Amino acid sequence: MKGPIIANKDRAAVLVQALPYIQNFMGKTIVVKYGGNAMINEDLKSAVIQDVALMSCVGIRVVLVHGGGPEIDAMLKKVGKESKFVNGLRYTDEETMEIVQMVLSGKVNKDIVALVQRAGGKALGLCGLDGGLLKGEKAKKGVDLGLVGEITSVNIDPLTEAMDKGYVPVVATVALGVGDAEGEALNVNADTAAAKIAAALGAEKMVLMTDVSGILRDVQNPDSLIKEVKRHELDSLVKDGIVSKGMIPKTECCRTALEGGVKKAHIIDGRVPHALLVELFTDEGIGTMIE
Amino acid sequence: MKGPIIANKDRAAVLVQALPYIQNFMGKTIVVKYGGNAMINEDLKSAVIQDVALMSCVGIRVVLVHGGGPEIDAMLKKVGKESKFVNGLRYTDEETMEIVQMVLSGKVNKDIVALVQRAGGKALGLCGLDGGLLKGEKAKKGVDLGLVGEITSVNIDPLTEAMDKGYVPVVATVALGVGDAEGEALNVNADTAAAKIAAALGAEKMVLMTDVSGILRDVQNPDSLIKEVKRHELDSLVKDGIVSKGMIPKTECCRTALEGGVKKAHIIDGRVPHALLVELFTDEGIGTMIE
Amino acid sequence: MKGPIIANKDRAAVLVQALPYIQNFMGKTIVVKYGGNAMINEDLKSAVIQDVALMSCVGIRVVLVHGGGPEIDAMLKKVGKESKFVNGLRYTDEETMEIVQMVLSGKVNKDIVALVQRAGGKALGLCGLDGGLLKGEKAKKGVDLGLVGEITSVNIDPLTEAMDKGYVPVVATVALGVGDAEGEALNVNADTAAAKIAAALGAEKMVLMTDVSGILRDVQNPDSLIKEVKRHELDSLVKDGIVSKGMIPKTECCRTALEGGVKKAHIIDGRVPHALLVELFTDEGIGTMIE
Amino acid sequence: MKGPIIANKDRAAVLVQALPYIQNFMGKTIVVKYGGNAMINEDLKSAVIQDVALMSCVGIRVVLVHGGGPEIDAMLKKVGKESKFVNGLRYTDEETMEIVQMVLSGKVNKDIVALVQRAGGKALGLCGLDGGLLKGEKAKKGVDLGLVGEITSVNIDPLTEAMDKGYVPVVATVALGVGDAEGEALNVNADTAAAKIAAALGAEKMVLMTDVSGILRDVQNPDSLIKEVKRHELDSLVKDGIVSKGMIPKTECCRTALEGGVKKAHIIDGRVPHALLVELFTDEGIGTMIE
Amino acid sequence: MKGPIIANKDRAAVLVQALPYIQNFMGKTIVVKYGGNAMINEDLKSAVIQDVALMSCVGIRVVLVHGGGPEIDAMLKKVGKESKFVNGLRYTDEETMEIVQMVLSGKVNKDIVALVQRAGGKALGLCGLDGGLLKGEKAKKGVDLGLVGEITSVNIDPLTEAMDKGYVPVVATVALGVGDAEGEALNVNADTAAAKIAAALGAEKMVLMTDVSGILRDVQNPDSLIKEVKRHELDSLVKDGIVSKGMIPKTECCRTALEGGVKKAHIIDGRVPHALLVELFTDEGIGTMIE
Amino acid sequence: MKGPIIANKDRAAVLVQALPYIQNFMGKTIVVKYGGNAMINEDLKSAVIQDVALMSCVGIRVVLVHGGGPEIDAMLKKVGKESKFVNGLRYTDEETMEIVQMVLSGKVNKDIVALVQRAGGKALGLCGLDGGLLKGEKAKKGVDLGLVGEITSVNIDPLTEAMDKGYVPVVATVALGVGDAEGEALNVNADTAAAKIAAALGAEKMVLMTDVSGILRDVQNPDSLIKEVKRHELDSLVKDGIVSKGMIPKTECCRTALEGGVKKAHIIDGRVPHALLVELFTDEGIGTMIE
Repeated sequence: MKGPIIANKDRAAVLVQALPYIQNFMGKTIVVKYGGNAMINEDLKSAVIQDVALMSCVGIRVVLVHGGGPEIDAMLKKVGKESKFVNGLRYTDEETMEIVQMVLSGKVNKDIVALVQRAGGKALGLCGLDGGLLKGEKAKKGVDLGLVGEITSVNIDPLTEAMDKGYVPVVATVALGVGDAEGEALNVNADTAAAKIAAALGAEKMVLMTDVSGILRDVQNPDSLIKEVKRHELDSLVKDGIVSKGMIPKTECCRTALEGGVKKAHIIDGRVPHALLVELFTDEGIGTMIE
Repeated sequence: MKGPIIANKDRAAVLVQALPYIQNFMGKTIVVKYGGNAMINEDLKSAVIQDVALMSCVGIRVVLVHGGGPEIDAMLKKVGKESKFVNGLRYTDEETMEIVQMVLSGKVNKDIVALVQRAGGKALGLCGLDGGLLKGEKAKKGVDLGLVGEITSVNIDPLTEAMDKGYVPVVATVALGVGDAEGEALNVNADTAAAKIAAALGAEKMVLMTDVSGILRDVQNPDSLIKEVKRHELDSLVKDGIVSKGMIPKTECCRTALEGGVKKAHIIDGRVPHALLVELFTDEGIGTMIE
Repeated sequence: MKGPIIANKDRAAVLVQALPYIQNFMGKTIVVKYGGNAMINEDLKSAVIQDVALMSCVGIRVVLVHGGGPEIDAMLKKVGKESKFVNGLRYTDEETMEIVQMVLSGKVNKDIVALVQRAGGKALGLCGLDGGLLKGEKAKKGVDLGLVGEITSVNIDPLTEAMDKGYVPVVATVALGVGDAEGEALNVNADTAAAKIAAALGAEKMVLMTDVSGILRDVQNPDSLIKEVKRHELDSLVKDGIVSKGMIPKTECCRTALEGGVKKAHIIDGRVPHALLVELFTDEGIGTMIE
Repeated sequence: MKGPIIANKDRAAVLVQALPYIQNFMGKTIVVKYGGNAMINEDLKSAVIQDVALMSCVGIRVVLVHGGGPEIDAMLKKVGKESKFVNGLRYTDEETMEIVQMVLSGKVNKDIVALVQRAGGKALGLCGLDGGLLKGEKAKKGVDLGLVGEITSVNIDPLTEAMDKGYVPVVATVALGVGDAEGEALNVNADTAAAKIAAALGAEKMVLMTDVSGILRDVQNPDSLIKEVKRHELDSLVKDGIVSKGMIPKTECCRTALEGGVKKAHIIDGRVPHALLVELFTDEGIGTMIE
Repeated sequence: MKGPIIANKDRAAVLVQALPYIQNFMGKTIVVKYGGNAMINEDLKSAVIQDVALMSCVGIRVVLVHGGGPEIDAMLKKVGKESKFVNGLRYTDEETMEIVQMVLSGKVNKDIVALVQRAGGKALGLCGLDGGLLKGEKAKKGVDLGLVGEITSVNIDPLTEAMDKGYVPVVATVALGVGDAEGEALNVNADTAAAKIAAALGAEKMVLMTDVSGILRDVQNPDSLIKEVKRHELDSLVKDGIVSKGMIPKTECCRTALEGGVKKAHIIDGRVPHALLVELFTDEGIGTMIE
Repeated sequence: MKGPIIANKDRAAVLVQALPYIQNFMGKTIVVKYGGNAMINEDLKSAVIQDVALMSCVGIRVVLVHGGGPEIDAMLKKVGKESKFVNGLRYTDEETMEIVQMVLSGKVNKDIVALVQRAGGKALGLCGLDGGLLKGEKAKKGVDLGLVGEITSVNIDPLTEAMDKGYVPVVATVALGVGDAEGEALNVNADTAAAKIAAALGAEKMVLMTDVSGILRDVQNPDSLIKEVKRHELDSLVKDGIVSKGMIPKTECCRTALEGGVKKAHIIDGRVPHALLVELFTDEGIGTMIE
């Protein structure tokens, strides 16, 4: 494993400086929504896996929740499946859902699991179908989007049992349909799934890995990062246009987590190598923290 | 749930007659290799799932191991992938392996899990990558078959932990490559995987669900079923041509299980509804039992 | 074990149809008051024991509470003991109580235990003296009835400890006297004991096995069985004369159980073979259910 | 509770002098065969119960095994049952066995349990039928003695489970028949039962409470007590006539216990109040110790 | 071990008479403040250690809290350290504190531990620094007394963990400074420490061993001992001058314990051999009990 | 906490590079003999404490064994105690032993405990008297050295119980005398104590912190460090004069540990800051490793 040229004594110093952070998070639960470039770029991916293995190793209970849009699109293209849209929203028919389930639960999920295992960690790859982890109904968005779902219940047992045994549960966001979707597999939003899982677990933190630096006061100016936001300030940030477009669902998702009892929500930049460790193990942190 | 018209008193009688069988298997481990028609025909599939849920419910520790040849072939066809053959054996290249992993771990596996959950049972869908369950090297068959693997080690922890919590572990037979296949996912034979898992668990029984009645003394005569075979008799059965063709690897697989410490191996007919229950809960049983 | 001639596939069907009922009661506590013909007739007795062994085997926590009037009478007669009556109620003197204790705790109780053990189950025979299970004072009925007692406290520890280890506790209804009966053994009513034990355990169900079909709207008409009664309807059923005579203490006993937190109370016909299983494992059930 | 007039400081001294003995026996198992005068005389009985309660309270795992000859005889007489003899040995027919079981398991056993409970201890009354504790076959003595049995297996689970929860198991010596006595209750010798139970438990000590001082070198001279005997010396003691008559089966029983792994066997005088405590908690002890 | 000449039967009687007291305290927590003559006189010390070992042995959870004034004074004198006084109160400078810590934690504490171990008991010697047991700030008495502390928090974990494993925790009253004494070792009052520890443990009793008989109505008259006091009567006892001088902080300390949830506080005479046992195991007790 | 100026990304890199080492030692036991300059110099002491807190935090079971020569000498001087010598070896009389015990168990030991606690770790300060941890007899060196002892038994229970609860046991090397030193506290050599404790625990490693670099091939040349030595090579190293003087008892002590089952023994340079971490968490390590 290559790395920076740092003297052994400095290495030791870095380790002991991490000690109070490790002591602080030991035994606590952190739900990481993994996605974006950090899941595509091989170097970034490798860094995330190392971060997760380290976090788990020093006693943090990590849950890794992931989607997998690009891989799904690639596979849909490969099988020649044309996407159907309703009012501009993609409609998920049964054939598409089959691909979604396969790619998320069988490809992306298990590949992450294999990487954590190879990094010396322990991981179990689950999806919402396993042990009744995620149940959902069809999303109510005014139009019928097919097998797109909204989570109605989270059964944390498979997660806590796995973490008690030292595993990192890796969760693919497919839910088991109930009610109007009885018995169907449903495609659910990964950010929201992370928020609901974090809330159900009473997690210390939920961390959303994104492709932006966090909430920028001036979206053009990377130096204008807002490092801390109070939950009640979110509305005015939206009104002032500072939180806009794609950042709105991210902050909504953070709000869901916080209202569900999660202590802190973080929007961090997955394009920065080891962003997770920098967030957890340094005072400055990275990205925007909402509490 | 429809069913035969049986008076309640007869139902009660059937239940109490099952009692000694239940008492006998309570707490014991049975590894079932699920495949063939029983995995394709919807009625048979439903019956198998009910059998498995019932077995788990009355205290049997069930592990369900499955392959998924037909689904893999269908998906390969869908993406227009031509199979390459070497000396008549299919070569598994990386693109094919990706499909194999996706279909087995993401589609077949999770569909079974969802069915068990819907039947009121508890299931966890794992593949060999999860928690280091199955490790393997490239198969040594004289020719290079690409990412076809042979299992070199089984880590039973993820299975026993799941069973201790009341889950049926459902296992897709993808292994994590080590040695000459370091870090690759490998496609491993499901029958052999079941045998090695059963041996590693010190299982009471391994049951292979097939599309034949068992070992027939005269393959043309369905009434010539051999109900019990001693392990040491297998060689002469092969020499006499009674065990031949596709039955040879089945019996080899049973031998592997038995030599690994499994008490009994069964070759049963998955085309018969509830073959598992009939095998476990009646004196006559079904199929061929090797010990 | 003889039984109805039912094809194996139908047997399997019966078993899987029992699955949802088994799943429903798994881990729950059911207190059965055993008595009447079901305790005298050898075939019925054998069927009850099988039912209890099966219930215990599929994970139901069963407590069997029994009296033993006929056996007590027979032994009193054998030793030439004349019963003394006060205001028409039998007076229990010390010599009688000695016989009561011996017959209930030493004969009836241990015979049941032996039968459950022989049926492959696990049973422990206890009476109210064991581990302080039942404590009582002299019954206050306006007249002195000697060593007839009313239960004042139930210590569930010996029951839960036994059930945690997989035993069916079989309880003979002799209580340890406190207060005005300090140190005496007391004869307590078995129906009431079952109700108080069920309440103390927070049982799912209490089942009274009787020699009637349940509550009949017209006591002459066996087809007039009332299958479900709400607790608050009991008073008017008594007022209307539908619940009368011997049924009144039975329903009072059910009321005691329900008011103590038991979910459902059942009055079933012990003369029907396997009445317990039919009640638990079919939709129609048998007898009257009060909730 | 009356007692000797002893100053508080002397009481304290007595207690601390008992400390090393308590420390020595803490957590160890002692099987006491209770019988003879100590079970008939009310003062002696009360003293034994106190001793047992105290032993249990200071962390000794006590099992109390008892017969009940006199009570059985009294009841047989009461019901007018004539004893039948074969070659001078009493024949146990079914009716007699019913009385034996009732008196032992229902009267003597539960009375002891009630006394221990009233002394502030915790006791569970079991017989050999409970939880498969004692199994036996018909005694082979050259003649058919009916339902007299010999123990063929001891299942210690009900005993260890009870002791783990702090109970004193009180055991009535009725066994469940197997083999030639399948399903019958059998009358087994209490001394032998104590020895077999002690052996199965790997007990520290077995103590036989008798109506003699121990082994006397001269049976006429109470001062000739032999305090310690080595197991291998027993044969010559018999040959020399020092061990004779009723003492022979007692010493045989001790031999059975010792050969089964019990560390020490004691024959003590149950007519001496608190003989158990004197044996355990003083250096001089009481009676004869065989090792 | 010498002792009073008491017949074995009387010894047995004493033991069984202690039974109800033992049963009463089994599993309960008793915090003993050990000090005064009982810690100086070798015979008294030996008696206390025996009492503590016996209490622990019969299932009482004992915590022994001690100071060590005389030993500290002796060592200060030995090193030629002159005590400095502020307003008549001793000032604890760093050098003195070093001696205090050494003598309390290293000499007095470990000597007690060794004595308990030699008496066959199990003891662990802790001070307030171990496992964060006692934290404190500088005492606020109007003047600066240096490293004299007041306890601000008690972490009972090291105590309960030790008692769960059968140890008597022996506690030297040195606290870890926080706030204005960050990182310093602080000298805390042992009586108060015992009270705060007893309160934190929710102890059944706190016992202060002193060099007086208890609260005397007339301090000149040893027969005027007040055996029981209600907490609310303490104020008037002080007002009436019955509780005065050195007894005031003792009763204040008892009040602290009682207000913190301790059931009973005792002031006993450590000059009486086995005062602890007499208090716990006789009806008359010794000293004054406040509740 | 100041430290080297290292960019956050490099800090993250250092942390993940430590991951395989952490994974390797997780759950393993490492016994560290702490002494020399690392215990005197405040900066070094602080670094050792951080190292120990970190090791404990990442799941290593650390036992810290220490002596305290300089502090003992200082205190002996303070009290004006002259050392007496026999054949050039210091004689430990009772008064000296009292100082030794006080300083080691009360001062050095508890100061280390306080530092670990303040560093956010959990520590318990024990000496050999606690829980029977170390027992010993008088050292047999040809002359009477008074209360100098040799360890005869190690009771690991207090250590494993503490480590199971997450504490670092800090051990002062005072032993409880048995045999010819019955009841005395004995002064035992700290290196040997570490070796015997490591052996009794079946430790992964024993690390001796010294004031030299390790075994130097040429004692004048600091670049001649021998990094690895096989146990069987020690004799020839002594014969060749490479291991000489003060290094001889160090290597003997390593041999004791290795022969007792410890996997590896290390002699490291305590004068190098964070020598422990460098040894454990880098490939190069530091000092000499003997296996």
